Amino acid sequence: MNSLHTIPRKDGFRLWSEHDWHSGSWMLWPERQDNWRMGAKFAQKAFAEIANTIAGFEPITVCVSASQFENARNQLSENVRVIEMSSQEAFMRDVAPTFLTNGSEIRGIDWTFNGYGGLLEGLYFPWNLDDQIAMKVCELIGIRRYKVHEFVFEGCAFRYDGEGTIVVTEECLLSEGRNPSLSKEDMESTLKEYLGIDKVIWLKRGLYMDEGKGHIDNLFCFVKPGESLLSWTDDETHPQYEIVHEALEILGNEEDASGRKITIHKMPLPKPIVITREEAEGIDKNAFSISRREGDRLVGSYLNFYLPNGGLIYPVFDEETDIAAEELLKEFFPHRKLVGIDAHEVFLGGGGIHSIVSAQPGIQRGLL
Amino acid sequence: MNSLHTIPRKDGFRLWSEHDWHSGSWMLWPERQDNWRMGAKFAQKAFAEIANTIAGFEPITVCVSASQFENARNQLSENVRVIEMSSQEAFMRDVAPTFLTNGSEIRGIDWTFNGYGGLLEGLYFPWNLDDQIAMKVCELIGIRRYKVHEFVFEGCAFRYDGEGTIVVTEECLLSEGRNPSLSKEDMESTLKEYLGIDKVIWLKRGLYMDEGKGHIDNLFCFVKPGESLLSWTDDETHPQYEIVHEALEILGNEEDASGRKITIHKMPLPKPIVITREEAEGIDKNAFSISRREGDRLVGSYLNFYLPNGGLIYPVFDEETDIAAEELLKEFFPHRKLVGIDAHEVFLGGGGIHSIVSAQPGIQRGLL
Repeated sequence: MNSLHTIPRKDGFRLWSEHDWHSGSWMLWPERQDNWRMGAKFAQKAFAEIANTIAGFEPITVCVSASQFENARNQLSENVRVIEMSSQEAFMRDVAPTFLTNGSEIRGIDWTFNGYGGLLEGLYFPWNLDDQIAMKVCELIGIRRYKVHEFVFEGCAFRYDGEGTIVVTEECLLSEGRNPSLSKEDMESTLKEYLGIDKVIWLKRGLYMDEGKGHIDNLFCFVKPGESLLSWTDDETHPQYEIVHEALEILGNEEDASGRKITIHKMPLPKPIVITREEAEGIDKNAFSISRREGDRLVGSYLNFYLPNGGLIYPVFDEETDIAAEELLKEFFPHRKLVGIDAHEVFLGGGGIHSIVSAQPGIQRGLL
Repeated sequence: MNSLHTIPRKDGFRLWSEHDWHSGSWMLWPERQDNWRMGAKFAQKAFAEIANTIAGFEPITVCVSASQFENARNQLSENVRVIEMSSQEAFMRDVAPTFLTNGSEIRGIDWTFNGYGGLLEGLYFPWNLDDQIAMKVCELIGIRRYKVHEFVFEGCAFRYDGEGTIVVTEECLLSEGRNPSLSKEDMESTLKEYLGIDKVIWLKRGLYMDEGKGHIDNLFCFVKPGESLLSWTDDETHPQYEIVHEALEILGNEEDASGRKITIHKMPLPKPIVITREEAEGIDKNAFSISRREGDRLVGSYLNFYLPNGGLIYPVFDEETDIAAEELLKEFFPHRKLVGIDAHEVFLGGGGIHSIVSAQPGIQRGLL
């Protein structure tokens, strides 16, 4: 199916919210040995646990290269669908289509993807197969696709309230490696036209050490329209202290598309995570790969959860903060079944549970 | 979805007939340069024409490697679905699942595939990806799969009347490279149990120079239960003369599963086809590739047609025999729209229109 060259907003389409009913979800299979330690075997185990857990809530498809097909098939449970689709990294949310709806039909946006910053500051090279994923998913499920040239954007780069407002960071969208020739105003205008939204709230930065280079999904999320969670620490020595306080100040002065103040609840950050020597040693060293050394800090956040139908799958870190996080998640998502998963190996590779899963809208029949 | 280890016949399943309504069809994209001349570009053009033609009759999915994805997408029309699925050759019928039905559900058989004869006499090496195609198609469309170990069988190796009878050749099934440890009786018993059929008619040989090593699809097909077409020549100097006369004699002495004599109509063979020097020159020469030299004969047959819903897509060869063939096809398939296609480039690589397409049953909802 070829791409559309019209503007979604004019076609009556708007951003779909992942809080709504899914027809299913999509993941990639981690394979690159210069990011995922020990031949990606630990990451594969963690990804498999996440996929197998999601399969208890909704249909899920895991996309894998030809060479890893059999292994993935054997590690994944029977009710996970495995299909061949090659990638260079494993962060499905960033490369999947951004799903739109007009209430009866689903369409997808296929942004440009350049490995989180292209040749200037991207995390790996090449990224051509990852840039094709959005097209391949649209093709496979049979939906029409808007191809956006020369606009680099990723699924972890925004949070959506479901009612016309998204929140992004300047660090990410205005980074030199992504869209150096676009002004902030150009970008805001394009986002409004393509996502059919009315308000873009700009935070300054994502969490410190977020490898998405300013991705917002570890920092902030909506619980529902007008209500949100913000990663938080009162510890001035915590590496995220300054960033979360800055975010709170900006959000406190903003209104959403409906003119509401956004209520902000504070989600405790886990204690700082540091790469161990053993973890650093098992990663291939290549010219283009990220350096991961003993003692390097990793980003970690409870907001990197995924919302399958009727469920909430969140990462656990350490008992103290886990208990507080779970209480908050229970409070704000009382009708969802909570499942905590040790996703340390996913965070080690720069990801999180939210980052590696993309939800497919459930309103159109016959998909997946 | 993991494989079943029960017996289809006992589960109430039987072979589905491609004369029935399809939910769609499947093809592979030709890529190997040691079989398809000039970087497979001529073959790709021919495959694209066939796929685009089928798309006018029914949904069609073309499976292509990651490296050829974009090129295939651009060569195929908008209503062809293109998905990533790697193969080593392009004969979908031989590697697709053999579809079974119990009237309300579809299942697939995943036979062993070994490149038409394994290390002993196979046409290429390796064939591991082709052996995975049946599994991948079952997985993608969400049907249960019977995995048959140690039984080499291909989709072009049999013809089915839709009512309990298949016709095969000894040359193919009993070839040393396929099932050397199985007796004819073992094979017949397995075929009956897995296909839920009651009669196996054994011809001696497939057409001369058929690269499937005895595949029956160029030689014989059913028009409907009890009525068939046999490739034919009265010219004693034609390379197929002896083979078609031998087949007629055997078929004339057989009854089908219902105890009927099978009416046999004679379909003229096209004039012998010979590879030109230009054609032979554009093929890569590798240790494992088939030798194709100037002057080598190619098999050609009007019976290598495909039956999309409401249509019949057949190969044209030369005007004289084309006219006679079309008249016969019109007579036996009066309700189908006939489309003749120059499939010379497909035959050059050892295929035909029937060989490169596999039909997916249409009785189950939600597939494709």
